[in-house]
Amino acid sequence: MSRLTEVPGGLVAFAQSLADVSGPVARRYFRTGVDVVTKGDESPVTLADRTAEEEIRKVIEATYPDHGIIGEEHGIVRQDAEWVWCLDPIDGTKAFIAGKPTFTTLIALFHEGTPVLGVIDQPIQNERWIGGVGVPATLNGQPIQVAKDLPIHDAVLNITDESMLHRPGYMDRFRRVMDAVRFTSWGGDAYGAALVASGSIHIMVEEGHQLYDWAALRPVIEAAGGVFTDWRGNRHDAVPGLHDVVATASPRLHEQVLRLLDA
Amino acid sequence: MSRLTEVPGGLVAFAQSLADVSGPVARRYFRTGVDVVTKGDESPVTLADRTAEEEIRKVIEATYPDHGIIGEEHGIVRQDAEWVWCLDPIDGTKAFIAGKPTFTTLIALFHEGTPVLGVIDQPIQNERWIGGVGVPATLNGQPIQVAKDLPIHDAVLNITDESMLHRPGYMDRFRRVMDAVRFTSWGGDAYGAALVASGSIHIMVEEGHQLYDWAALRPVIEAAGGVFTDWRGNRHDAVPGLHDVVATASPRLHEQVLRLLDA
Repeated sequence: MSRLTEVPGGLVAFAQSLADVSGPVARRYFRTGVDVVTKGDESPVTLADRTAEEEIRKVIEATYPDHGIIGEEHGIVRQDAEWVWCLDPIDGTKAFIAGKPTFTTLIALFHEGTPVLGVIDQPIQNERWIGGVGVPATLNGQPIQVAKDLPIHDAVLNITDESMLHRPGYMDRFRRVMDAVRFTSWGGDAYGAALVASGSIHIMVEEGHQLYDWAALRPVIEAAGGVFTDWRGNRHDAVPGLHDVVATASPRLHEQVLRLLDA
Repeated sequence: MSRLTEVPGGLVAFAQSLADVSGPVARRYFRTGVDVVTKGDESPVTLADRTAEEEIRKVIEATYPDHGIIGEEHGIVRQDAEWVWCLDPIDGTKAFIAGKPTFTTLIALFHEGTPVLGVIDQPIQNERWIGGVGVPATLNGQPIQVAKDLPIHDAVLNITDESMLHRPGYMDRFRRVMDAVRFTSWGGDAYGAALVASGSIHIMVEEGHQLYDWAALRPVIEAAGGVFTDWRGNRHDAVPGLHDVVATASPRLHEQVLRLLDA
C-alpha cells in the first residue's frame, strides 16, 4: 500500500498529456455511424478504444519504460512496478455509439498498488476532471468540491442503466436507494462520478466495475471531498473483484446508502 | 390541418433567434448548484425555465403580436392563431439539475394546428437541430439524416428513465422492445430524439409527453427521414392527450416496435 503524500507534479502533467493523446482519437471516431465500413468489421468504438490505448501506451513506454500498464484492450505489463498506469480510453461505450458526449477517457496512476491519481476526460465537450493524493480536485483547472452535506431525500442519484435492476436481489437493494432520494438521473457511466466530484450529483451507485472502470474515479472523488467504496463500505486498492461501487458527496449520505443497500 | 408546403425562411430564422435568446439564460443557471439561495426558494432550473420563457415570449410579442404562444410556465395566448409557438426552454430538468449537458431547449412552430417546424437546441455544447416542412434537417447547419434501415437486433434504443418500467403494463410492453434491440441507452430526454434525427440512435420510445415535449421533435425527425407517432401509430397534431411517443429511423423499425409494444 502506498504511503505517498503527494503525486509528483511531473506525473500529474504527464497524465494530462496522455488524455491529450486520447482525445483526438475519440473525436475522430465519434458519431461516424454504426454503418461505417472498417477492416475486420470492427465498430468505431472498438477502433477508438484500441487505437487510443495503443497511442497512450507508446507514450508511456517512451517516457517511463519502467512503469507498468494495465489496459482493457492490450493487457498488462510490469504490474509490480512502483508506478502503474491503468487505462480505459472509452468508458461508456454505449453512450459513445449512441452519439452522446457523456463517454469519458479514464486514466489512473497506481503507486505501490494504490490508485493515487485520476483523470476523467470528456474529449467532445473538452471537460477534464483531475484529482489525487496531494493533488486538489479540479475541472478544467478550476477547483471543485463535492456538494455540501444534505438529507438523502434532497439528494440526486445517478445510475448508468437498469441492467442491475433485473439481477436477482439487486433490484430490491437498489430500488430502496431510488425511493429515498429526490430523483434518479439515468445514463452517464464515469461522467456521473465526475459530477459527484464537481457537486451536481450526490450519490452514484454502480455494479459490474472492472479495475479500469473505477481506479480513476476514486482519486478524483476523494480529492473533491467525497467518499468512494464498494457496497459494503470497503476501500480496496487493486482488487480485481471490486465490482460494486458507491460514491457519495458526504459520509452521512454514504452511511445511509450502505444501510439501504444492505437492508 | 395545415397544407403548408414550406415554412417561410423568415420564420425559420426567427425560430433560431429564439433559441439564441434562451441559450444564455440556460448557461447562466447551469451547474450553479442545488444549494444556491434564490428569492422565493426556487431552484435554478425553475428560474432558468421561467426566465427563458419570459424572454422568448417578449421577442415573439414584439415581432409577431398576432402569433399564438403555448408555454409550460406562462400558459397559452391566441391558441387559434394561424401561427402558434410552443416552448419548452428546459426539456430534461433532471439532467439540467444533475449537471449533464443533455437537456435541451425545444421550440416548435404550429401552422393551423400542425407542428411544421422544430428547433432542438443544446446550449452548453452549442448543438442545434432544426427541421420542418420544406426545411431540410440540419445539425449546426450541416445536413443530417436518420440512419439507414437495419434489422431491429442491430438497432440502438433510447429511453430517458425507467419510471415507465414500474407502471402496470408498461414494463412488459417496453421490455419486449429492449429485448429485441442491440442495446438500450438511458438518459437524454429530447436529446435522444435529436440523435435519432442525426443517425446515431435508431429508436426512441417515451411516455408521459405533453404537447411542448414532442411538438418540436416530430418536424425534425420527419425532415431527417424518420417516423414519429404515438404508440398506436397515430400521427396526431395538437392533441394534448398524446402521451406515448415512438420515433424510429425507418418505417420497418417503426412497424416492428409498434408490434412489440402492442403484442
